[in-house]
Amino acid sequence: MSGKVYLVGAGPGDPELLTFKAWRILNSADVILHDELVSEEILALIPAKAIVHNVGKRARRSSTPQAEINAHLVRYGWMGLRVVRLKGGDPLIFGRAGEEMEALRTAGIDFEVVPGVSAGLAAAASSQIPLTHRQIASSLMVLTGHGSGDRSGSWPARIPATATLLIYMPGYDFAATARQLLAAGLDKATPCAVVANTTTAQEEIHLTSLEELPSIVRREQPTVLLVGEVVRLARIRSRAEVFAHSFLMGDKQRAPEDWPA
Amino acid sequence: MSGKVYLVGAGPGDPELLTFKAWRILNSADVILHDELVSEEILALIPAKAIVHNVGKRARRSSTPQAEINAHLVRYGWMGLRVVRLKGGDPLIFGRAGEEMEALRTAGIDFEVVPGVSAGLAAAASSQIPLTHRQIASSLMVLTGHGSGDRSGSWPARIPATATLLIYMPGYDFAATARQLLAAGLDKATPCAVVANTTTAQEEIHLTSLEELPSIVRREQPTVLLVGEVVRLARIRSRAEVFAHSFLMGDKQRAPEDWPA
Repeated sequence: MSGKVYLVGAGPGDPELLTFKAWRILNSADVILHDELVSEEILALIPAKAIVHNVGKRARRSSTPQAEINAHLVRYGWMGLRVVRLKGGDPLIFGRAGEEMEALRTAGIDFEVVPGVSAGLAAAASSQIPLTHRQIASSLMVLTGHGSGDRSGSWPARIPATATLLIYMPGYDFAATARQLLAAGLDKATPCAVVANTTTAQEEIHLTSLEELPSIVRREQPTVLLVGEVVRLARIRSRAEVFAHSFLMGDKQRAPEDWPA
Repeated sequence: MSGKVYLVGAGPGDPELLTFKAWRILNSADVILHDELVSEEILALIPAKAIVHNVGKRARRSSTPQAEINAHLVRYGWMGLRVVRLKGGDPLIFGRAGEEMEALRTAGIDFEVVPGVSAGLAAAASSQIPLTHRQIASSLMVLTGHGSGDRSGSWPARIPATATLLIYMPGYDFAATARQLLAAGLDKATPCAVVANTTTAQEEIHLTSLEELPSIVRREQPTVLLVGEVVRLARIRSRAEVFAHSFLMGDKQRAPEDWPA
């Protein structure tokens, strides 16, 4: 009898943001293949009997080729096992799940996709940034800094000021990112939020503007970048943040007392 | 002492797709204000002691004005209660959470946003449609059929064939939607999936093309519309669906045996 493969979203990091379904499936797994982006706290929930592979594709480190991951999934499926492909966030956004599903279909192995809380939505929740807003933002564009092939080919040439951008894996060259977004028509004062390690104890939220984005030091942590007028509504968590924010906002500076608490 | 308001994502419908955090907060709530989009099964989890308001804004029905919802949140917060604003899917995508957060900040009431599994991501998971794909789709555009003001102002004028569109509350006029997407440059053979009541026992998935979209009968159910080349990778769940799909695909017809099982 053939096994079954579950492509499961582990959510953004906080184990409390796992779904009941993800937890139930994880708990009964024979084999788990997980990303670098799955948090330590969630990996600690994996049952002791399970075979575990870290097949992470973290930036700047050696990684398991996608073809090898596909082959693992198929091989364990043919062995009749219950296999979990555990991905940070949601499995269907920039997770290469399309390629894994095609491999499983070709091999005739049953599979199911279990959606999760996407890291970008969690970053917005932590920062209290509405991704859409009746008066400010009518659409959301979800992009990645690691597009396949030419970046300029994979990002829209024109970006309206009424769109919110949510950029996964934004890369390390924020100067190039800012240049490209300015060339796409965004104003240099457009506010940005750089959110790292969202929903974990190591979460960091940096508020800045497109013009000042290159000055943000990007470290090797899971990071998402939010760009758009809605970022102006982000929560300010300390006086220090208020001042940094006002300073970085330049022309569109608001006095700290104008900011919501 | 002031209370606290939680803006909580209830997920797409299946109670197993609630997060542990959403469940914990729901379980300790004094007051719950919920949408029409929150499923019956999830409403059944609400503790008996809680005050419950249905403030749903379902299409074509009378609804609670946003200002009144905001006033409820503030009033209960001032009463020192633990208030949950429970929204279908994720609270920050087309949920008017921005307006609620502004009202709460102005009133000085503490609040927290708890992200959820967005209905669009769950619809993609049920249909086994990867929202992005290295070879096919480099970005995701999240739109709504119920934009504020002029629809043509809120949707991008040009949509590249490499974008996947995820349209929440797509409205009832699929002919107008198809016309607008064709005018934005999409090919008439672009595949579409209409997914209603996702992750519930009443889930329906209709696969079609942009050209044939107007022939889909849209009933009064929570629905999302997926448009883009990745929809061609959707799972086919029955022979009947295969034939309907091949028929609707027209020029780009594939024989049933070419489709994955």
